[in-house]
Amino acid sequence: MIDYTRFLSSTGRQLAESAIRRMGTVVATATDVVSFAPGYPAPELFPWDELREISARLLSGTDADTLQYGPTRGYAPLLDAVIGLSAERGITASRDQVLITSGSQQGIDLIARVLVSPGDVVFVELPTFTGGIAAFRNAQAQLVGIPQDDSGIDVDALDAAWQLERAAGKRIKLLYVIPNFQNPTGFRVGWMVAPPPLIERFETAKQSTDLTSGILDQHVVYEAVRRGVVRALAPKLRALYAQKRDVMEGALRAQIGSQLAWDSPKGGFFIWATLRSGCSDQVLLDRALAHGLVFVVGSAFFVDGSGHDKIRLSFSAPAIPRIEEGVRRLAIALTELLDHQGSSLVRGHGQATP
Amino acid sequence: MIDYTRFLSSTGRQLAESAIRRMGTVVATATDVVSFAPGYPAPELFPWDELREISARLLSGTDADTLQYGPTRGYAPLLDAVIGLSAERGITASRDQVLITSGSQQGIDLIARVLVSPGDVVFVELPTFTGGIAAFRNAQAQLVGIPQDDSGIDVDALDAAWQLERAAGKRIKLLYVIPNFQNPTGFRVGWMVAPPPLIERFETAKQSTDLTSGILDQHVVYEAVRRGVVRALAPKLRALYAQKRDVMEGALRAQIGSQLAWDSPKGGFFIWATLRSGCSDQVLLDRALAHGLVFVVGSAFFVDGSGHDKIRLSFSAPAIPRIEEGVRRLAIALTELLDHQGSSLVRGHGQATP
Repeated sequence: MIDYTRFLSSTGRQLAESAIRRMGTVVATATDVVSFAPGYPAPELFPWDELREISARLLSGTDADTLQYGPTRGYAPLLDAVIGLSAERGITASRDQVLITSGSQQGIDLIARVLVSPGDVVFVELPTFTGGIAAFRNAQAQLVGIPQDDSGIDVDALDAAWQLERAAGKRIKLLYVIPNFQNPTGFRVGWMVAPPPLIERFETAKQSTDLTSGILDQHVVYEAVRRGVVRALAPKLRALYAQKRDVMEGALRAQIGSQLAWDSPKGGFFIWATLRSGCSDQVLLDRALAHGLVFVVGSAFFVDGSGHDKIRLSFSAPAIPRIEEGVRRLAIALTELLDHQGSSLVRGHGQATP
Repeated sequence: MIDYTRFLSSTGRQLAESAIRRMGTVVATATDVVSFAPGYPAPELFPWDELREISARLLSGTDADTLQYGPTRGYAPLLDAVIGLSAERGITASRDQVLITSGSQQGIDLIARVLVSPGDVVFVELPTFTGGIAAFRNAQAQLVGIPQDDSGIDVDALDAAWQLERAAGKRIKLLYVIPNFQNPTGFRVGWMVAPPPLIERFETAKQSTDLTSGILDQHVVYEAVRRGVVRALAPKLRALYAQKRDVMEGALRAQIGSQLAWDSPKGGFFIWATLRSGCSDQVLLDRALAHGLVFVVGSAFFVDGSGHDKIRLSFSAPAIPRIEEGVRRLAIALTELLDHQGSSLVRGHGQATP
């Protein structure tokens, strides 16, 4: 039996796995699991008709570029569309400041590779995106968590952390903050906006990473933007996600009541719930899995070792009856744990809980 | 003006650009350029009808997975199809030995990141793929070139290089060899086959790189394999590429004659030509660009600083009249250089030429 670990690079040895992706694997290999884990978009509103029409048109054979390799920088009309979308959000960008990426994850990864040397400090929010944690950890960054309050990152805490790391002689490289309420898609098309000298470096790094993002994907996304598919869909998506959120909140209130606390989210895909009973996120997940429910433990999003009193429940993808069924399973798991209050079942992994 | 270079990581500072990709940029920004540079597939035989039918079916709305995020490992039916394709080539693989990648480039990049530490020796062929050179250089590998003879890599030279590097106390990590006659596609779908412990590491690295390869692309490629589109296309592609090769060779013989030497390729997309006149690849490229022709300099493929007496001419993508026009431009550029034989125009960049 060959020991393959001895062939690994220093990066290969310390690769950090994404907690969310791991949960995805659980779902893929089990049956009848309700998943509140990944923030997947709602399949009910996938714009099938529009995408089918766009694809038929793109694959009519009139434009060979649709199936040909393209420039690393991205499909030129899509670059211009991105510039337009950015302008609507108050970000002025020119062609030499934009790069199309294979989803937002690749943008984060390119930033980590091109900007972060081992030992560099990267400030992140508490909590933050696990894909960001993994990418920065894989670049061997030192992650420092900054608390958030209701209006976002706590700037006084940020200032204090800055002073502390600077006094310790650390190289502080990045502050990674997440805008409100992202909208993921199954297409692997994202973009970066940055100053031209950095975009040029990101593009060079992308050359050796994947040459180019998917060409057909880029054409489809461009057409969807151009034809207003995305714009027309947005209000319908907001209404559906609001409805699903209300269903999850109603079920949580009815079936679980005082054991969980949460602020009603004004956007996005998730309810962040705090466990009042003093049990840990991981112990609860283990019980929930036994009943066919999966979610992501809060601690996966906190780089300072905290968050064990929190769980993240995604309501975006499951159909409404599945949301209700999932909350029922969560209630059973919580009840079982409460019945064992004080026993070894409740507290686990030695983490501090309030 | 901010100096952004001071924010770069050690990797970001020494990023290697792909010579082929750079040529792609030249083509994208110029007009009436004949490109013998990148090994793009022939657009004449893109299977538009089959892909349009496949897309229409995939986007009928019956399978939400087509537009949903999928597992990092890859779309399960495609994994099984890859196992079947591998078996036809004599490679036995099971599910835990396969990973779908965003093109072959991402496979090389994952290998570089997961296996290569700075200073590790990677053996490559002379010449080798520039995308491989870039990925290994970006992992800060020490690249050692091994000559090839008519039947592939020179195993005696490989053995001698191995002894030499080992005696010097170097860590020899990889031998990177290229199979005959690759078949690229515009879809960003490739795959890796490796022992399970390594596939698991590659998958973890891919999580933070791009989460997953394009989902629609994976479904389309799976369907194209399943329906036999790829198999039916192969003989037509071989015939077309043979015809284009013959056109290029005929034109080279008629218009350039004794100034170039080459072996007729039995597959693939390229004629590798040796410059007999003693002029350098880069000087010739500069002249050719002035006449609207682009190709890739031979030296870009040689990690030992040699190859300046070679040029790579791709015949796969241009239409047949464009191949003839490109050779006409090459003949003009070569004639101009010969007229200046002995002047500073012919030899450049200080490299050794025979």
